[in-house]
Amino acid sequence: MNLKHKLLLVTILFSSICFAQTKVVEDFKPSSVNQPGKEYPMVNSEGRVRAQISAPEATRVQLDISAVKYDLVKDENGVWTGESAPQDEGFHYYQLWVDGAAVPDPGSKYFYGASRWGSGIEIPAHDQEFYAMKNVPHGQVIELPYFSKMNNSMRRCFIYTPPGYAQNPEKRYPVLYLQHGGGEDETGWSNQGHANLIMDNLLAEGKANPFIIVMDNGTWAMPRPPRSGQQGERPAGPWPPEGWADGFMNTLLQDIIPMIDANYRTLADPQYRAMAGLSMGGMQTRVITLAHPEVFSYVGMFSGGSISMEDLEKSPGFKDNIKLVFISYGSREIENPRPGPWGDPKENTEVIQKSGMNTHFYVSPETAHEWQSWRRGLHEFAPLLFKN
Amino acid sequence: MNLKHKLLLVTILFSSICFAQTKVVEDFKPSSVNQPGKEYPMVNSEGRVRAQISAPEATRVQLDISAVKYDLVKDENGVWTGESAPQDEGFHYYQLWVDGAAVPDPGSKYFYGASRWGSGIEIPAHDQEFYAMKNVPHGQVIELPYFSKMNNSMRRCFIYTPPGYAQNPEKRYPVLYLQHGGGEDETGWSNQGHANLIMDNLLAEGKANPFIIVMDNGTWAMPRPPRSGQQGERPAGPWPPEGWADGFMNTLLQDIIPMIDANYRTLADPQYRAMAGLSMGGMQTRVITLAHPEVFSYVGMFSGGSISMEDLEKSPGFKDNIKLVFISYGSREIENPRPGPWGDPKENTEVIQKSGMNTHFYVSPETAHEWQSWRRGLHEFAPLLFKN
Repeated sequence: MNLKHKLLLVTILFSSICFAQTKVVEDFKPSSVNQPGKEYPMVNSEGRVRAQISAPEATRVQLDISAVKYDLVKDENGVWTGESAPQDEGFHYYQLWVDGAAVPDPGSKYFYGASRWGSGIEIPAHDQEFYAMKNVPHGQVIELPYFSKMNNSMRRCFIYTPPGYAQNPEKRYPVLYLQHGGGEDETGWSNQGHANLIMDNLLAEGKANPFIIVMDNGTWAMPRPPRSGQQGERPAGPWPPEGWADGFMNTLLQDIIPMIDANYRTLADPQYRAMAGLSMGGMQTRVITLAHPEVFSYVGMFSGGSISMEDLEKSPGFKDNIKLVFISYGSREIENPRPGPWGDPKENTEVIQKSGMNTHFYVSPETAHEWQSWRRGLHEFAPLLFKN
Repeated sequence: MNLKHKLLLVTILFSSICFAQTKVVEDFKPSSVNQPGKEYPMVNSEGRVRAQISAPEATRVQLDISAVKYDLVKDENGVWTGESAPQDEGFHYYQLWVDGAAVPDPGSKYFYGASRWGSGIEIPAHDQEFYAMKNVPHGQVIELPYFSKMNNSMRRCFIYTPPGYAQNPEKRYPVLYLQHGGGEDETGWSNQGHANLIMDNLLAEGKANPFIIVMDNGTWAMPRPPRSGQQGERPAGPWPPEGWADGFMNTLLQDIIPMIDANYRTLADPQYRAMAGLSMGGMQTRVITLAHPEVFSYVGMFSGGSISMEDLEKSPGFKDNIKLVFISYGSREIENPRPGPWGDPKENTEVIQKSGMNTHFYVSPETAHEWQSWRRGLHEFAPLLFKN
């Protein structure tokens, strides 16, 4: 037995000891976003993720979730298995590492986030009923290609129309323009966010007014914002730099809104138009609605900054036109505040409320800068919209 | 140097020699279905696929495409690169192997086929313009959840509505029910097949009548057909067994068609209703339209069997009601015929044509049992529909 083999044996023994010492509750079930017929990955009642992959020739396989890599253990058939620490409720991106290669887990469905199509997993949440697929009337999610003059290229958006839209050809609806975060795209709010199911369930309970939701791509619009969502990629200087949202602002105002108003049965009036977004999409919402408060009446920012008194002073039309400023964060973002360029969001929101603006501040319990915070944000925001 | 190391060195040298001897044309470009910003995989003018992945600790990495595994070669940075033999034009499923683990390529977008979400690649085809994204009027692809009484569960279908559908609230349209193959699902015809773009382009050129396309799931309907699309999984006995298509037939006739006619502006009449499918979906089309010829007027089967005189004798209404039987195959399927339970498709089609049926037989040049054959099949079939 040479040194390498001895080290390997020590590693295996040590891993096995760690494995045995972790008190894992053995009630694992397949994740709800597994591929059809796939048993792994699994999740237990503690929120641990158990991954498994066959890799007979590999020497190291890891589960990489929430920025921690967990070693998997190989059995006699070359199948590697192991689990993570308990995860927060809701949706998480993750990946596997096989001998140094970062790859999607072949067991999971794939989602666009963290600037890649890759694996995602659901930790069942105590409040998951609000975005569950139920036997209630369902709206449509429409994929529509369109030509953008601003970008001189074909683009794609997703459009949610509420239940009844197809059956009531005379009825017109308000519109929410709803944006994804950095490293995500126009698929995020329906695939990971379940915006359509959140609305279908709210509508079935009579808790919201029906409206159309337009989900477009906030990254691929010229000029493009600097890449975010990945550490170390932001350019030097203040962030976001001046003009970073101009590409999407021009695309939204000059291409997307006129195209939607021309092709769908909208109430094409600012009092029936809202904009919201998560993270980068919230920051875009802030910049765009401050620059053009005459276009919108409702503003939502989920984990994406806030509106300050200084903003109101620079955008005199904002206070008159905007009927609601909704700000939300995950509790783990607020407990452990990230340095932001616009001050404390709760404090900012209280100050503009005292100045006479209608505001709503919401904190998602025990969630971080992740989709469960944003699902809950939309679920709180939607019932407040278009209450004219 | 022990025996294992010697063998490894020989393998590396041998791989290098093979690599050097292959006259690869160095005009590789990123595949058109790569993830945003990803350089690899690439395709060259010969149709070779070049894959690349960083796997510094791996000892063997392979590209697995069209049932052949190609060894990749590691560089000093731990990055593995290598290419396949030339592939047929069109779309192919593929995967990577990293030290015995079969994984999706992190560079490609993912598609559902071969009973998994996994990598796909496009080999540019000489006729790719017919399914290209162009600046022409575009229809919508609608994702709709609905409750199925037959299955006592929520299901999902995709619905293509042609350009103008949203803008002309009085107009009603014929409907084509279009089915995927074994190991695929309701996403296949739009994601891999580009059925929507094929129709948008035909309509822009005035080569087809506008109609709605409904794409549902032919596998997950109770009772389920036996799994196909994977070797060695078919049950013993004649295939397909009696009754194998009943689950989807009941779901289609009792849930899907009534739901579509109630919610979309269809011409709810057999003369404006077509059914077609590829492979397993073609076989389902055959069984369902023979059992219920009073429901449809146009029948298409792409690489999925044919209609024989014996079929006509057993289904007396078929000949009277069905205005067109369209049969197509990829040339490589016809050149190298697979044993099928229903005889030679070309011969069958000629015989029923002589008996008085309107038929069309099409062979896709130099393609196999793959999506390029089915894209071309739909492109030939669609202009023949609803010419009343």
